[in-house]
Amino acid sequence: MQFQIGQASTQRIATTQVKAYVGQRVRVEGWLHSLRAMGGITFLVLRDGWGILQAVTEHAEEIASLEGAGVESIIAIEGLVVSEPQAPGSVELHELQLEVLVPITEVPLVSLNKRTITAHIGTLLDSAVVTNRHPTRRALLRLEAGVMAGFRGTLQARGFTEIQTPKIVASATESGANVFKLDYFGRPAYLAQSPQFYKQIMVGVFERVFEVGPVFRAEPHDTTRHINEYVSLDAECGFIENHFTVMALLRDVLAGILTTLSEQYGAELDLLRVQMPTVPIEIPHIHFAEAQELILKLHKVDVRGEPDLSPQDERWLGEWALKEFGSDFLFVTGYPMRKRPFYTHPDLQRPEYSNSFDLLFRGTELVTGGQRLHRYADYLAALEKAQLPLEPFASYLEAFKYGMPPHGGFAIGSERLLMQLTGVSNIKLATTFPRDMNRLTP
Amino acid sequence: MQFQIGQASTQRIATTQVKAYVGQRVRVEGWLHSLRAMGGITFLVLRDGWGILQAVTEHAEEIASLEGAGVESIIAIEGLVVSEPQAPGSVELHELQLEVLVPITEVPLVSLNKRTITAHIGTLLDSAVVTNRHPTRRALLRLEAGVMAGFRGTLQARGFTEIQTPKIVASATESGANVFKLDYFGRPAYLAQSPQFYKQIMVGVFERVFEVGPVFRAEPHDTTRHINEYVSLDAECGFIENHFTVMALLRDVLAGILTTLSEQYGAELDLLRVQMPTVPIEIPHIHFAEAQELILKLHKVDVRGEPDLSPQDERWLGEWALKEFGSDFLFVTGYPMRKRPFYTHPDLQRPEYSNSFDLLFRGTELVTGGQRLHRYADYLAALEKAQLPLEPFASYLEAFKYGMPPHGGFAIGSERLLMQLTGVSNIKLATTFPRDMNRLTP
Repeated sequence: MQFQIGQASTQRIATTQVKAYVGQRVRVEGWLHSLRAMGGITFLVLRDGWGILQAVTEHAEEIASLEGAGVESIIAIEGLVVSEPQAPGSVELHELQLEVLVPITEVPLVSLNKRTITAHIGTLLDSAVVTNRHPTRRALLRLEAGVMAGFRGTLQARGFTEIQTPKIVASATESGANVFKLDYFGRPAYLAQSPQFYKQIMVGVFERVFEVGPVFRAEPHDTTRHINEYVSLDAECGFIENHFTVMALLRDVLAGILTTLSEQYGAELDLLRVQMPTVPIEIPHIHFAEAQELILKLHKVDVRGEPDLSPQDERWLGEWALKEFGSDFLFVTGYPMRKRPFYTHPDLQRPEYSNSFDLLFRGTELVTGGQRLHRYADYLAALEKAQLPLEPFASYLEAFKYGMPPHGGFAIGSERLLMQLTGVSNIKLATTFPRDMNRLTP
Repeated sequence: MQFQIGQASTQRIATTQVKAYVGQRVRVEGWLHSLRAMGGITFLVLRDGWGILQAVTEHAEEIASLEGAGVESIIAIEGLVVSEPQAPGSVELHELQLEVLVPITEVPLVSLNKRTITAHIGTLLDSAVVTNRHPTRRALLRLEAGVMAGFRGTLQARGFTEIQTPKIVASATESGANVFKLDYFGRPAYLAQSPQFYKQIMVGVFERVFEVGPVFRAEPHDTTRHINEYVSLDAECGFIENHFTVMALLRDVLAGILTTLSEQYGAELDLLRVQMPTVPIEIPHIHFAEAQELILKLHKVDVRGEPDLSPQDERWLGEWALKEFGSDFLFVTGYPMRKRPFYTHPDLQRPEYSNSFDLLFRGTELVTGGQRLHRYADYLAALEKAQLPLEPFASYLEAFKYGMPPHGGFAIGSERLLMQLTGVSNIKLATTFPRDMNRLTP
């Protein structure tokens, strides 16, 4: 990390860099994270953007300037770096010179300096502006940056081009999900529920594309697994063989994300006690129809004929994958065409099944993807079969009219991945400022 | 680039990799970019996601399978790689085996295989799904990926954390720009016109943050410089000295973007004949008041007392910076407080001026930034002075109530940067699928 920016920060170092300066005096700046006195000794902890650092003194005059400055005050400390195995990061500061840059007197409603944050979820989210500062909240939220970096890095290394596509769209007909309606200069418009059409169109331009951006779902469900705006990690790839090409790519992307987190976000993972999964070289896969047969055999429940898997089905399959293959991950392939969107490519051998897949992670769906139709005539037929009008799809259809290769892709919900990885109980806790049916602030 | 994904692509290589295989047979796949016969010799050009490759034959039977397949058909060619200095990329394929994967018969309305694309801008944009495939359009659009990569890389190396903040917001009061209104489960909501408040709030969490994402402006202007949805490259940094710290950071970010483009997007820059600027180690700067005096001195036009610079003023200043310092870039600092948003930090020595700046690039504003207020009491006073109610800012104000360091940042419009860099005449050409007052598709 290059810490210095311009003249201003010449003297300052980050708390995470202090351990390299044992025996020297350093200057750190940040928030007064905690302050307590024990038997004539004062322990104060400074928090900056990356970590925390303890400072210790027995001399009241060294901390006299703190008079009237409570926790979360902005302070600077200069001190001598001393090894102390008991301290956070195994170093602490002695012989302090303290300066209060911005004194704070109001005490946050939720304590930020306890090891865990214990407030009710409603309070946590109402006060997210401040509660996101808690080290455990911050660690979780920082992992999102690692997920994005791992996703991008893996795809860039494979020749994918990053794109940004419009979020205001003219038509709400993509997949039947509920959409938010907008007034666009007096005309109706909608918020994009996914970049699906645009990423396919851009396969016609760059062949391999990805996008990291917000998507909007106006689904009127207030559950622990719903948010109405989330970050979608979308990829789409041309010149595939079939959905198995896409699954191989997704396998590499997941491995890349997890490697990035392990290598660059170790402190966060440790703090959150995340049990990192390993991605098998080849993730096991099972066809939808076989999965239903397996459930009958193992659990004596007949779900054959159901067009989709239930959460219980997914849990059973997850258990089976773990037991049978030692894998936290399992692909279920070939979902019935009637449950998949119109652009889904059928399995030509068994046309009632699709060339699509879900990826289960620890028994819950994490990613959906598959091969798409690529011939113009197939789109015309699919739209007719779905009883959808052609006109709203006119631009989308142009891509196929003028040549598109066999292609496919997938979308990972960033918050869902973080939720399942860290084990938080509610997806709203896997994002900085969630949007749900009742929550538009902060 | 790792080209292979799974089994499917084992044999295939990218057109840009072919030159390493002279004397060997290779397989490429892509679009039939052009096909012409000259005196018994057939030249065909294949375009894939990265480049183009010429294939040549005198034997009609080698291209017999092309019968009925027009340009933009999806094809595969196997052939012998031969050095040919006249060919694009200095190699071409001989002894061809051709396969048509998806035949196309409709001819695109706008020709994709001429050196330049000549259609009227309205046609270009209406047919963007296809016209974006033209090599020059594609090169320009691909530069956006380089801009994003350079922006992120420079900031990540300096300890910045990438964030994603909500685009649906409860309040429309940020800066007075026009906003899009939305129906949010029966309540009014708005599309974020910038991540300004959220990035400041997140300085309280990560200290240094950046975001790359869409912003929405409902400005009813249909000009060559307006679009209503664009990609904003936002950064915000805590513990600054003043706006000069931010300017030093911005200088490094711009240098990082341009270096990334030069090093990784050379083919695109060459094709577009972009004259790359160099970013001086220290970009020259001039105070707003001195800039007005300079204009009086050099051009005998008295703009003193004006609260802002006109486009003509900016052009004059750009000329001056080039002549005086040999610099394409110039910072103008200290814009009058009355033209800047309420959260702007004043110049404490001259409180009618602000600690803000614009960066001019070749005589046009490219970036706006500055130092923000950071004390709670200052926000209360600023909102009162601006006659704004407190309630919509309640969450934002919490950040300052509970401790915020001196901080500041900037926002770069990705499309504006690309427009000014490449010299396209209309900002709508600097994005894949622009949104303007009259355009919601494609």
